[in-house]
Amino acid sequence: MPSGNEIAVFEQCHANQLAVMLKGPTGCGKTRFVEHMAWRLGRPLITVSCHDDLTASDLVGRFLIHHDHMAWQDGPLASAARQGAICYLDEVIEARQDTVVVLHSLTDHRRTLSVEKTGELIQADPGFQLVVSYNPGYQRMLKDMKPSTRQRFVALDFDFPPTEREIAIVLREGGTDAATAQALVTLAHKLRGLHDRGLAEVPSTRLLVATAKLIAGGIPVRQACYVGLVAPLSDDLSLAGAMRDLVDLTFV
Amino acid sequence: MPSGNEIAVFEQCHANQLAVMLKGPTGCGKTRFVEHMAWRLGRPLITVSCHDDLTASDLVGRFLIHHDHMAWQDGPLASAARQGAICYLDEVIEARQDTVVVLHSLTDHRRTLSVEKTGELIQADPGFQLVVSYNPGYQRMLKDMKPSTRQRFVALDFDFPPTEREIAIVLREGGTDAATAQALVTLAHKLRGLHDRGLAEVPSTRLLVATAKLIAGGIPVRQACYVGLVAPLSDDLSLAGAMRDLVDLTFV
Amino acid sequence: MPSGNEIAVFEQCHANQLAVMLKGPTGCGKTRFVEHMAWRLGRPLITVSCHDDLTASDLVGRFLIHHDHMAWQDGPLASAARQGAICYLDEVIEARQDTVVVLHSLTDHRRTLSVEKTGELIQADPGFQLVVSYNPGYQRMLKDMKPSTRQRFVALDFDFPPTEREIAIVLREGGTDAATAQALVTLAHKLRGLHDRGLAEVPSTRLLVATAKLIAGGIPVRQACYVGLVAPLSDDLSLAGAMRDLVDLTFV
Amino acid sequence: MPSGNEIAVFEQCHANQLAVMLKGPTGCGKTRFVEHMAWRLGRPLITVSCHDDLTASDLVGRFLIHHDHMAWQDGPLASAARQGAICYLDEVIEARQDTVVVLHSLTDHRRTLSVEKTGELIQADPGFQLVVSYNPGYQRMLKDMKPSTRQRFVALDFDFPPTEREIAIVLREGGTDAATAQALVTLAHKLRGLHDRGLAEVPSTRLLVATAKLIAGGIPVRQACYVGLVAPLSDDLSLAGAMRDLVDLTFV
Amino acid sequence: MPSGNEIAVFEQCHANQLAVMLKGPTGCGKTRFVEHMAWRLGRPLITVSCHDDLTASDLVGRFLIHHDHMAWQDGPLASAARQGAICYLDEVIEARQDTVVVLHSLTDHRRTLSVEKTGELIQADPGFQLVVSYNPGYQRMLKDMKPSTRQRFVALDFDFPPTEREIAIVLREGGTDAATAQALVTLAHKLRGLHDRGLAEVPSTRLLVATAKLIAGGIPVRQACYVGLVAPLSDDLSLAGAMRDLVDLTFV
Amino acid sequence: MPSGNEIAVFEQCHANQLAVMLKGPTGCGKTRFVEHMAWRLGRPLITVSCHDDLTASDLVGRFLIHHDHMAWQDGPLASAARQGAICYLDEVIEARQDTVVVLHSLTDHRRTLSVEKTGELIQADPGFQLVVSYNPGYQRMLKDMKPSTRQRFVALDFDFPPTEREIAIVLREGGTDAATAQALVTLAHKLRGLHDRGLAEVPSTRLLVATAKLIAGGIPVRQACYVGLVAPLSDDLSLAGAMRDLVDLTFV
Repeated sequence: MPSGNEIAVFEQCHANQLAVMLKGPTGCGKTRFVEHMAWRLGRPLITVSCHDDLTASDLVGRFLIHHDHMAWQDGPLASAARQGAICYLDEVIEARQDTVVVLHSLTDHRRTLSVEKTGELIQADPGFQLVVSYNPGYQRMLKDMKPSTRQRFVALDFDFPPTEREIAIVLREGGTDAATAQALVTLAHKLRGLHDRGLAEVPSTRLLVATAKLIAGGIPVRQACYVGLVAPLSDDLSLAGAMRDLVDLTFV
Repeated sequence: MPSGNEIAVFEQCHANQLAVMLKGPTGCGKTRFVEHMAWRLGRPLITVSCHDDLTASDLVGRFLIHHDHMAWQDGPLASAARQGAICYLDEVIEARQDTVVVLHSLTDHRRTLSVEKTGELIQADPGFQLVVSYNPGYQRMLKDMKPSTRQRFVALDFDFPPTEREIAIVLREGGTDAATAQALVTLAHKLRGLHDRGLAEVPSTRLLVATAKLIAGGIPVRQACYVGLVAPLSDDLSLAGAMRDLVDLTFV
Repeated sequence: MPSGNEIAVFEQCHANQLAVMLKGPTGCGKTRFVEHMAWRLGRPLITVSCHDDLTASDLVGRFLIHHDHMAWQDGPLASAARQGAICYLDEVIEARQDTVVVLHSLTDHRRTLSVEKTGELIQADPGFQLVVSYNPGYQRMLKDMKPSTRQRFVALDFDFPPTEREIAIVLREGGTDAATAQALVTLAHKLRGLHDRGLAEVPSTRLLVATAKLIAGGIPVRQACYVGLVAPLSDDLSLAGAMRDLVDLTFV
Repeated sequence: MPSGNEIAVFEQCHANQLAVMLKGPTGCGKTRFVEHMAWRLGRPLITVSCHDDLTASDLVGRFLIHHDHMAWQDGPLASAARQGAICYLDEVIEARQDTVVVLHSLTDHRRTLSVEKTGELIQADPGFQLVVSYNPGYQRMLKDMKPSTRQRFVALDFDFPPTEREIAIVLREGGTDAATAQALVTLAHKLRGLHDRGLAEVPSTRLLVATAKLIAGGIPVRQACYVGLVAPLSDDLSLAGAMRDLVDLTFV
Repeated sequence: MPSGNEIAVFEQCHANQLAVMLKGPTGCGKTRFVEHMAWRLGRPLITVSCHDDLTASDLVGRFLIHHDHMAWQDGPLASAARQGAICYLDEVIEARQDTVVVLHSLTDHRRTLSVEKTGELIQADPGFQLVVSYNPGYQRMLKDMKPSTRQRFVALDFDFPPTEREIAIVLREGGTDAATAQALVTLAHKLRGLHDRGLAEVPSTRLLVATAKLIAGGIPVRQACYVGLVAPLSDDLSLAGAMRDLVDLTFV
Repeated sequence: MPSGNEIAVFEQCHANQLAVMLKGPTGCGKTRFVEHMAWRLGRPLITVSCHDDLTASDLVGRFLIHHDHMAWQDGPLASAARQGAICYLDEVIEARQDTVVVLHSLTDHRRTLSVEKTGELIQADPGFQLVVSYNPGYQRMLKDMKPSTRQRFVALDFDFPPTEREIAIVLREGGTDAATAQALVTLAHKLRGLHDRGLAEVPSTRLLVATAKLIAGGIPVRQACYVGLVAPLSDDLSLAGAMRDLVDLTFV
C-alpha cells in the first residue's frame, strides 16, 4: 500500500515513457510496489534479479541449438520491449556496467533495443517501461551506477513504512496480538538505530513478519527475536550482544 | 539544432574522410547531432553503444552456425565500411583499448578493415565515416583513450545549449508554461555549479524535459524536481540536501 | 541429537515457509541436524557443497546435448523446488554472491525460481524449504553474505555439544573406554582455547572421534592425538608445539 | 620519403634475414616506411594491428568448421612465412608477451614456425621478414617488450620529419598555401614542446595534414587548429588552454 | 622403507575409513610411501598431481562427445570411489579451494560423491580412501588449506630419512662407494642448514641419488655436486656461493 | 661448440634418465647446445617455446573434431615420451606453474605421463629426456620455478662464450675482418658491464653477429652498432646515450 504520491509519479512516468529508479533499503516494499503498479496499469511484469554475472545476452537473448538449426530466443528485456511489459531490474547496482549499458537506447528518445546477434532493431512497444531498484545504504563505495546511466531515470525514494502502517502489516501478516506487533515495531526502530554503529543492514518489515510468525507458532518471544532479528543480521559478537540487549529491554 | 560551425566542421571532415570525436557531458545532444548530420549528408547511420565487454568481433563480425554450414555475418563496423554509412561509437571510452585498436586502419590513409577470420580486407566506401563520442567530465583517471587513437580524430567540444535555446527546448518538449521552463533552466544552472563540490554528473537537458513533463502531468513542481533532478543524480545525503535547498529556493 | 529448541524453531520455519540459516564451527553437527530434520519432516533432502566456482546454472539446471536434440536437466535447486524437498547449501559463504542471488525469489513472498534459459517460472512446492550454513568463525573479512541476502533467513546459532554429550558421542562412535573419552574432550576444550592465540580452526567432535578410533585400534594415545588433533590443524611450529604440550599434559 | 640510410639498413637486414624493429612516435611514418620497403623489395606486405587480445592463434591460424569437416586456415604470420612476405606487427608492445613469444623461432637461426594444432613445422621462405613497431614515448612503465624478444631485432629510430620536409608534406597533402603550411609546422614544434609538461601525445604530421585540409575547406584557421590539434590531444583544461594560447600566438 | 609407526597409523586410518594427509618436504618419500601402502593393503592407487587449473570436473568426470552421442567418463576421484581405490592428491595445496571442496562429502560420515552433471550420487566402496600431501615448508603465506578441509584428515609428518638410512639409499640407488655416499649425506645436512638463511628448498634424497649417479658415471665429484645439488636449488649468487663453499669443504 | 664438460654431464644425465635444466642469458647458445646433444645422442628433438598461455593440454594433447568422430592428438610432451625424443621447453619460467606440474611424474622414478582425458598412462620410452631452459638474469622477482620442480633437474650454468671463441664466432658467422670482430667483442664486454647500471638485457653473441653482418653489407660501423646493439636493447635515453658513448669510444 504505497502512498498516493508515488503512484501518481509512477503513472505520469508511465504515461510519458520515462524510466523509473526505486531507491531504498532491502525489504521495504519496492518489489511489491512494482507488482502493484503493473497490476494497476494492466501491464505484464517481467522481473530480473541482477548479479555480477548477468550478461547483456541474458537480457537481450541468445541463439539456442535445436535438432538441426539454431533458433533465437528473446531475453527478458527484448521480450518486455516487444510486448509492452514493465521490465523490472531488481538490485540493478549488482549488474556490471557493461550489461547496464544495453539499457541506454531504450531509455532515451530512441526507445530501441539493438539485437546485434541477429541484426534486428526492436522498437519498444508504447506500453514498455523500464524500472530499476537498488539499496543506496551499503556498498556505495564499491559499486555505483554510471552517471550517464543515472541521467536516464526519474527516481523515487523508498523507506520503511511509517510506524502505524508497519504495525498493521505485522499484525495482519504475522498473526500475533496487537501488543506484540507494536513491541516488535518499537524494537525494530531501536535496532535500525544501530545502522550508524556499524550494522550493515537493519531489520526489514519482512523480518518482523517472520519473527511474528514464529511467535504466533509458539516460539518464546525473546528466542524468536534472537533467531529472527539478531542472528541473521550480524556475526559480530559485540553488535549481536547490543541487539540482544535491545531485545531483552523490549520484552522484559 | 547545433550551431552552424559544428555543422561546417563536420561536413569538411566528411568531405575529407576525417574521423570525428564528439566530447561533452551526457545528454547534451551528441547523439542527436550525429543523427542530424547523417540525415543532412544523406548517409545511413549505424550506432554502437560501447561497453567493457564489446569485443573486436562484435564490431567486425563473426561466423554464425546455420543448418549445415557456417555463414559470415558482418558486424556494425564492417557493414558501415561496406555501404558507406556513418558508424557512431557512443561512449567509446567504455570500450577496451584492444577493441578500439581495430579502428586504426580505418582512420588513416589506408581506410581498410582487415577481417582476420575470413582473410578479407574491406576497402571502406568513400562515404564511410567514423564518429566517436565520450564524456571527458568523469572517470578520466580510470579510463582514457590511447594517445595513438586520439591522433586519428578531429575533435568537437560540446556543452549544454545556451540558456535561451535550453529554455526553448524545455518549453517545446516538456510542455510546461514559459515561466516554469525558465525557472527549471535557472535551477539547472545552479545545480550544475555543484559539479565542483562533488556532484559526479550534473542535470542534462534531458532530465529537465523529463521533469517538465511530470509538472505538465500534474505532479507538484517541487516534488517533480525532487524525483526528476535530485534523486537520480546522487545518493549522498548532504549533496542531495544541497540540491533540494536549491530547488526550494527556486520554487518558493 | 540437537536440543529441542532448535527443532521447534526449525519446524515453525518449515510450517511458515521461512528459509533457515545455520551458523557455527566446522564439524559441530549442522549437516547432521539438517539430515535429522528432513527425516523428521518427511521431506527429501538435496545437499549442495558450495564453492567459488558454483554457478547459477549449477543450481538451476542446464541443457544437455543428446544424440539429436538438447534436453533440459533440472539442477538441485530447481529439482528441490518442484518436488518440495529441503535444499541445503553447505558453506554458502563460499559461493559467489551472483550465484546466491538466484535464491532471492525463492525466499520472499514469491517463492518462485525463474529459469531464464527455458523461460519457465517454477512455483515452489509448499513443502520446499531452503537451508544454508556457514562458519562465522573465520574468513569473515574476506567473504560475507550480502546484507540483502541475510534478510531472507531465520538464523540458528550452533556450537560444539556440551561436555557430557560430547563425551557420550566420542564414547559411542570412537569406541574407547570412558576415561579416554573424557580425557579427549577435556583436551579438546584446552585446544579450543587456542582459538584466540591464532589457531584458525579448533578441533571438532569429528576429529575427536577419529582420534578415538585410532586409539581403539591400538595406536598409542599421545601419538594418536598428535596425528589426529595436532598435525591436521596447524603447520605453525610454535602453535603445534603448544598443542603437543597440551596433549602431553593431558595424557602424562 | 625516408632518408637513404634507413633504406640501406633495412635492405641489409632483409638480405641477411634479420628482423627489424621500428621505434618512434605515432604518425611519424613508420607504417608508410614499411609499405615503401615492401614495394621496393618486391615483397607482399601483411599487416597486423596488435592489441591486448591478440592470441597466438590469431597469428598462426586456426581450424574453421565447414559443412562436414574442419579445415585449417593460416593466420597472417603463417601465411607470410609460407609466401615470403614481410609481416608487419604494428604497435607490437600492445600484444601480450605470450603472443609475442611465437615470433621467437622465426627470428633466430631456425626461421621456423611451429603449428602445434596440426603438428606442422613451417620453414620460412627465404624472402620472409618480420618487422615490428612501437612508440617508446609513453606507457613505458606499464608494458615493455621482454628482453629476450628485443634481442631478436635490429632497431631503427624514427622521429617526425625535419622542418622543411614536414612543411612540404603539409603543403602537398593538406592543400593550403605555403605560409599556412609553414605556420602550422611552427605551431606543431611549439606544441611538441609541451610533451615535458604532461602532454601524453604530441601532434603528428598526420594531424597537421588534417588541420590543413579543414583550412583549405574554408574553416577559419584558429578554429581548425582548435578542433584539429588541440581538442583531440587532451581533456585537461589547463593543458588545452596552453595549447589554445599557442594557437592564438601563431595565428594572431 | 617408512618406519613401522606410520604404517600402523595408516592401516588404522584405512580400517576406519579416515582420510590421511601427508606433510613434509619435497622428495622425502611421500609418494613412495603411498605406493607402498597401496601395495600392502592390496588396493589400486590413483594419483593426481594438483595444480591451479585443476577443476572439479577433472576430478569427478565429464561428458565426452562420441560419434553420435555423449558418454560420461569418470574422473580419477569418481573412479577411485567406485572401485575402492586409494586416491592420492599430490601437492593438494596447489589446487583451488573450490576444487578441494568436492572432497568434503567423501571425507565425512556420508562417504558420497555427488556427480551434478548426471544427477548420480556415488556411494564410495568400503575400500576407498583419500590421501593428500603437501609441503608445509614454503608458500605457507600464499596458499593454505581451508580450515574446514583440514578437519577432515588425520595427518602424518614426514621428514628426510635418518642419516644411516639416507646413506644406505644413496649407496644402493646411486651406485657410488660407501665413503662418497656418506660424504654426500653429510654435505646434504650442511646444505639443509641453509634453509634458515633463505634457501627456499633444500636438497632432497632424490637429488643426492642423482648426484651420486653422475659421480658413478665418471663426472668429477665437485662438479657433480655443483650441477646436481647447487645449481638446481638457487639462482641467488651469494646463496650459490655459500653452497659451493660447502661442497668444496666437504670434498677437498 | 660447447666445452667438453657440459657434454659429458649431459650424456651422463641422458644415460641415467635425469632431466636437465640449462640456465643462462638469452642468446648464449642454450638452444644450439640442445640441438647438438640431440644430434650426438641420435635422438629426435621436440622444442616448445613456453609462454603464459601454454596449457597442460598444449603439452599433453587434445581431442580434435573430425568429420564424424573425435580423434586424440598427442601434444609435444606425449609425443616425445612415446618415441623417446628429447623434449626441450625453452624459457620454461614463462609457463604457468600449473602447466609445469604435468612434468612432475615424468621426472621422478615413475617416468609416466597421465593423459586424464583418455585415461591413458604413458610410460616414457627409455630414450625420453626432458630439458628445460631459462634466463636467471631478469624477472627473478616476478616469476620463479616452484622449488618442488627445481628438485627434479640437474642444472648446467651457461654464459657467453669466452673472448677468443666469441671472436671466432663473429668472424665466421658475421663475415667481417678480424679487427672488426675483435672490436665488436670488446665493445660487447663493455656493454655487458652496464647490466649492473640498469640494462635489463645485455647484447648476446647473436646481436654481435647481426651487427657484423650489417657492417659486412656496407653499413658504416658506428651506425651498424647503433641499430644492432644500442637501439634494440633500451628505450631509456640516458642508458642509450651511455651505450652510444661506448660505441664511439670503441670505433673512433
